[in-house]
Amino acid sequence: MNELLNATHDPQLRSWVASANEAGSDFPVQNLPFGTYSQGPQGARKIGVAIGSQVLDVRAAGLVDTADMNELMAQSPQVLSALRAALSQGLVEGSAQQAAWERFLSPQDSVTLHLPCRIGDYTDFYTGIHHATTVGKLFRPDAPLLPNYKWVPIGYHGRASSIGVSGQVFHRPLGQTRGPNEEVPVLRPSHRLDYELELGVLVGQGNALGEPIGMGQAEAHAFGMVLLNDWSARDVQAWEYQPLGPFLSKNFASTISPWIVTMEALAPFRVPFVRPDADPQPLPYLDSEGNRRQGGVDVALEVWIETQAMREAGQGPARLSQSNFRDAYWTVAQLLSHHSVNGCNLQPGDLLGSGTLSGPRPEQAGSLLELSMGGKNALTLANGETRTFLQDGDAIILRASCAREGFRRIGFGECRGQVLPARRLQ
Amino acid sequence: MNELLNATHDPQLRSWVASANEAGSDFPVQNLPFGTYSQGPQGARKIGVAIGSQVLDVRAAGLVDTADMNELMAQSPQVLSALRAALSQGLVEGSAQQAAWERFLSPQDSVTLHLPCRIGDYTDFYTGIHHATTVGKLFRPDAPLLPNYKWVPIGYHGRASSIGVSGQVFHRPLGQTRGPNEEVPVLRPSHRLDYELELGVLVGQGNALGEPIGMGQAEAHAFGMVLLNDWSARDVQAWEYQPLGPFLSKNFASTISPWIVTMEALAPFRVPFVRPDADPQPLPYLDSEGNRRQGGVDVALEVWIETQAMREAGQGPARLSQSNFRDAYWTVAQLLSHHSVNGCNLQPGDLLGSGTLSGPRPEQAGSLLELSMGGKNALTLANGETRTFLQDGDAIILRASCAREGFRRIGFGECRGQVLPARRLQ
Repeated sequence: MNELLNATHDPQLRSWVASANEAGSDFPVQNLPFGTYSQGPQGARKIGVAIGSQVLDVRAAGLVDTADMNELMAQSPQVLSALRAALSQGLVEGSAQQAAWERFLSPQDSVTLHLPCRIGDYTDFYTGIHHATTVGKLFRPDAPLLPNYKWVPIGYHGRASSIGVSGQVFHRPLGQTRGPNEEVPVLRPSHRLDYELELGVLVGQGNALGEPIGMGQAEAHAFGMVLLNDWSARDVQAWEYQPLGPFLSKNFASTISPWIVTMEALAPFRVPFVRPDADPQPLPYLDSEGNRRQGGVDVALEVWIETQAMREAGQGPARLSQSNFRDAYWTVAQLLSHHSVNGCNLQPGDLLGSGTLSGPRPEQAGSLLELSMGGKNALTLANGETRTFLQDGDAIILRASCAREGFRRIGFGECRGQVLPARRLQ
Repeated sequence: MNELLNATHDPQLRSWVASANEAGSDFPVQNLPFGTYSQGPQGARKIGVAIGSQVLDVRAAGLVDTADMNELMAQSPQVLSALRAALSQGLVEGSAQQAAWERFLSPQDSVTLHLPCRIGDYTDFYTGIHHATTVGKLFRPDAPLLPNYKWVPIGYHGRASSIGVSGQVFHRPLGQTRGPNEEVPVLRPSHRLDYELELGVLVGQGNALGEPIGMGQAEAHAFGMVLLNDWSARDVQAWEYQPLGPFLSKNFASTISPWIVTMEALAPFRVPFVRPDADPQPLPYLDSEGNRRQGGVDVALEVWIETQAMREAGQGPARLSQSNFRDAYWTVAQLLSHHSVNGCNLQPGDLLGSGTLSGPRPEQAGSLLELSMGGKNALTLANGETRTFLQDGDAIILRASCAREGFRRIGFGECRGQVLPARRLQ
């Protein structure tokens, strides 16, 4: 059924790294996601592969000759697939490499995880049709889904400099807002601070300026995926976004998970991309037989909140919602082809966000804006606290995993970020 | 009157580089703009200063110990001012350095000019109120200038990867467009391709994430300015831009001039920033006494077109319009303060575009969209050709200069780009 599968996906494989074989591990030997780490915050950066609770130094193991993730990402799918095969063979039970490689392992909780790569340009799409519809109703009750939505993979450019890795903390942003009963706007801390549950695609091989990526080649330009929290100040956004789109309401911080789950690791979880009969079919430059057959990816997503009160009470975080990337309106291949159809050059390490991934049901929403109906209906958390938007001290944790009958479950690790109180303007 | 002036601005200074003293030279010894060049396209990159028709190798002259412009840009204004003073003293007539430095000069037309720095993030603002009003009428006849315009320095993120240096050529972009009488959109070459006359501010010292730049410090974070042509596909823009702003209509190419005119070189041309009495005054975080006194910059701007027919006839380019940066609605300091007020981190080499700088009169418009009234009124060029939007083979040349009684005129050089025919999608 799936020509993308190979020996590295065999669910029977077990690793000599025992923690990789635990049922709940996000990082069994079938996953092998890449990240950038160092021994201590100032240590030399290395390319690592997550295996169970450990990270393997890939260069020390003799499999790459660079410590620069962007250089690795620029390699062809063939080279990357051979690397994955070598990692798999070296890490499975009975491997001849075990004795040599054991000394290249470090516990993940003993190292510093960095942004996995240098992100040159960051684009955020808007593929969550349920999010677009719900939010559209709040901003434009008369036209929730605009006429272009089902034709154009809507996207816009985001800010690369303020993207941080899981663990990022940031001050509640100041911004211009104008309340419904106010004559003039005021600069103040955002009081409608929100998260957005997204996946991000990290670009592998780039394309030259002026040379579009056709659908047949698009997947070869995707290196892998991460979780992405596109923090948003809704009150700032409402006041600033016309006519050129979101700006300061988004660019104060964005958080991604540290481990890049490769497209090859996701192969067992590909699903057909099917448009409802009533909807327009994609234009030819966004269509291909392969995309229809297995353009989607079944990735289960979760959002959790950990408030200050939960931490003080020693409670764990509470789940806010669940959704799935297979409900996105556009596929990874379509995002890559659309982005480059005008000749725009994508480069290794560029980040393409999916947009907020809300499911079809209200409780599957990927933002508080949706869950609270624009702030009108407060959510009650398990410990009795309520939220319309985020409070100081709140941490948001995104999680993702892929599971399918006959295959080993893989996960993305977590993407965590926390809101600090606003600073005073100097 | 102007505490920003010093000995380097003395209009009596002449250089031992004779071409710098010619009346029409953009690069007299009072200018000293920085650029990045190499001997041949593949040669080692060097930091150069333009002087007349020549470029001086600044490291060879012993004044910096880096060939990386971004490193230079990260220096404090005090260090940069000392460097400018040393360059000025070394290049003026009678300088003791003349004999040593003569061998570090190359004719500008013998070297390859590159992008002057690595541009990490590119933000485009919308400070041209006359442009915003005219274009707003075309897109939204009922609300040309939105309620936020006079309060918020409207901006959005652009694409850094496709920015090129003067001389850039690019293929007419393909894009989804839907004509007024069409049921469904079609992918085709843009037929409403346009330029936008802008200035760009290149950031010098950055700010840490979470630490806003106050108005009092803002100018210390501006390294200098360049010309910027923000090429735009108007038909693509009209179809894609709701609700998140321009995307593929802009990111196929943007062109900047190679020489960064420093803020210190622009000091003699600073002008008061005055809001009309009927307009709201800037909020406190966008206001300062210094900004009111000399926040503006008097930069005269010009757009020229050179068509294929003009080249074949051996004719020079024809001027399309003139305007001035002093008519912008927001100042450089306000752009920097607004951009960072939410904690967004700016980095050395980041580019902030002014937005299209149209003057108050219709013939001062900085785009064909405005000059042709949305394509309704074709312009007739000096050679009898007509244009509503750009044709294949058209080159657009932007120029800028500063002149003031009692000071030496300085210029920006030129920013040239040319449209090639569309490519066929593979």
